[in-house]
Amino acid sequence: MTGLTYRASGVDPSRAESALSRIRARIAKSKRAEVIGDIGAFGGLFASPGADMVLVATTDGVGTKLDLARMLDRHEVVGADLVNHCVNDAMAMGAEPLFFLDYFATSHLEPDVFARVVGAMADACAAHGCALLGGETAEMPGTYGPGSYDLAGFLVGAVRREAILDPKNVRVGDVCLGFASSGLHTNGYTLARAVAARAAAAQGKDVLAVLTSPRADLDGASLGDALLRTHTSYLATFRALRDAGTAIRSIGHLTGGGWEGNLPRALPPGLGAAIDRSAWRVPAVFRVLANLGSVPEDDQWDTWNMGIGLVVIVAEADAETARRAAPDAIVLGRVEKARDGERRIRFV
Amino acid sequence: MTGLTYRASGVDPSRAESALSRIRARIAKSKRAEVIGDIGAFGGLFASPGADMVLVATTDGVGTKLDLARMLDRHEVVGADLVNHCVNDAMAMGAEPLFFLDYFATSHLEPDVFARVVGAMADACAAHGCALLGGETAEMPGTYGPGSYDLAGFLVGAVRREAILDPKNVRVGDVCLGFASSGLHTNGYTLARAVAARAAAAQGKDVLAVLTSPRADLDGASLGDALLRTHTSYLATFRALRDAGTAIRSIGHLTGGGWEGNLPRALPPGLGAAIDRSAWRVPAVFRVLANLGSVPEDDQWDTWNMGIGLVVIVAEADAETARRAAPDAIVLGRVEKARDGERRIRFV
Repeated sequence: MTGLTYRASGVDPSRAESALSRIRARIAKSKRAEVIGDIGAFGGLFASPGADMVLVATTDGVGTKLDLARMLDRHEVVGADLVNHCVNDAMAMGAEPLFFLDYFATSHLEPDVFARVVGAMADACAAHGCALLGGETAEMPGTYGPGSYDLAGFLVGAVRREAILDPKNVRVGDVCLGFASSGLHTNGYTLARAVAARAAAAQGKDVLAVLTSPRADLDGASLGDALLRTHTSYLATFRALRDAGTAIRSIGHLTGGGWEGNLPRALPPGLGAAIDRSAWRVPAVFRVLANLGSVPEDDQWDTWNMGIGLVVIVAEADAETARRAAPDAIVLGRVEKARDGERRIRFV
Repeated sequence: MTGLTYRASGVDPSRAESALSRIRARIAKSKRAEVIGDIGAFGGLFASPGADMVLVATTDGVGTKLDLARMLDRHEVVGADLVNHCVNDAMAMGAEPLFFLDYFATSHLEPDVFARVVGAMADACAAHGCALLGGETAEMPGTYGPGSYDLAGFLVGAVRREAILDPKNVRVGDVCLGFASSGLHTNGYTLARAVAARAAAAQGKDVLAVLTSPRADLDGASLGDALLRTHTSYLATFRALRDAGTAIRSIGHLTGGGWEGNLPRALPPGLGAAIDRSAWRVPAVFRVLANLGSVPEDDQWDTWNMGIGLVVIVAEADAETARRAAPDAIVLGRVEKARDGERRIRFV
């Protein structure tokens, strides 16, 4: 009887090391002055920003957008998505990103896929001036199907204590400024995939054909292209607003749970918002998905961002300054008192 | 045709909220003075330590121990494992834990399982004086099999800059002190599960029977019991050594990759260690696995910790103080020059 070894059982620790070696130069580009390198390897070291600062920690995944990325061989997208999602979440508390760590789990590590995903994370970190400080790679045969993988990201940012964005500062009459999303970002993909599967069944095609066929209602793009746009990072917009002296009162990052699931998190109890849906054009991808899947209106708005990825709330007196600093801002509506027993986001 | 909804596609965001509500009190017990609570929800807030401190960030998973925990309905174990693994990794850099975040991903959230896993994380955090500051829950039908889930943990600790444990401080002749593990901790489970599967096939039993039968060679415990002991946290040992004034030179946390994969990470280039394997008794679970699977000797030591979960390296002059402060320390051997082209850990 042959003896069992770790390799024979399906795990080869040298694969992770070899995959990592391909992207070391890209990871190095994300390094910042606070990173203390080359000391041991059990944890990443980063000089503390100091006691006048508050750390903001956030963790996210990419969800089943991963399955689309895999099916369409677009692994870079989800790596960048993960970083951008975390950056936006920390920013919604007022923070600048400091460092990021990732968790990459799969059945059997494919060095090429790993390098494409984590390489894209490194590039996205570097683009934000955020250090990719560490990561964990797990091979778990059995937990994940062949070729399947999952990702989790962890980001720590920092904000001066007096600059923390606290929803309790929001007042009735404050202005809600919206910023366009690139598409679904990283939320609502299980529904989007169910829609694609239903369309495939109805048309007697396979899902890949539905995802890759050019569509007139998407200006010639395929549904897969439209679904695999990168989650927008709003850090440049945030910095522009802040540097122009705009007193941002609160920020809502529209992710899982859509409008009603996220914008109220940027508001104090008792307040809601009246949002003018004619202020922007819902991107075609949402309309296509809604039509193909006969998705009820409320479910669309409770699942997807419908074209607005970020809502920045400012006092009325600051709205003009804000619009000059961020010319792509869309005036969506106003903060108002919430009505008892009704939804806090009221579409008008 | 019925319209598709997010719930119909398999994801129900309210399940995560309901599951979380069951363990809020336990999470609250992990709160520390630095946690700034009740402000928004896009990130967790934690007052930064002063600029004389260095943040230590680490991320880990539990690997396929998860499958055993699920099979034997022992979900609490893996929650505590994840925290303890991260605590030990940060500690190997000299750090005390500050806060922890978790990622929990599954096909379909079972609130009871979630509450048991994340509740155990909260308890383990509280036991270490570490805040459970946030987490992400993902439902990904299709990525995970029914009942299957994955976990990732992320911990930030802090250490005074001059107290960072740097392997370059290690000298030839330094003493290696070992501390007992409770078993495999969280590494080498894919090999252990392959061994159990082979034993089942050889004995014409199912794997569950192999895992749950009491065994004379495990003093009446089952293999499943022996495999589901909680990953030992060594923080109390570390604090005792530090508080007794022991000048710790370096720490190696023996996880994935066993001895050769981890102890060299606690040593500077060019140095190795001579380890006396007769200094401790390898626990029965390793011998049972090795015998059942005919696992070659090198593979055992390159995969599992073989009974020692942590190695603390001290100067010879400090060894007695250390042993008084931590009476369960085992003198394993000494640091020596590594030999060209040979393994850095030499068993004698």
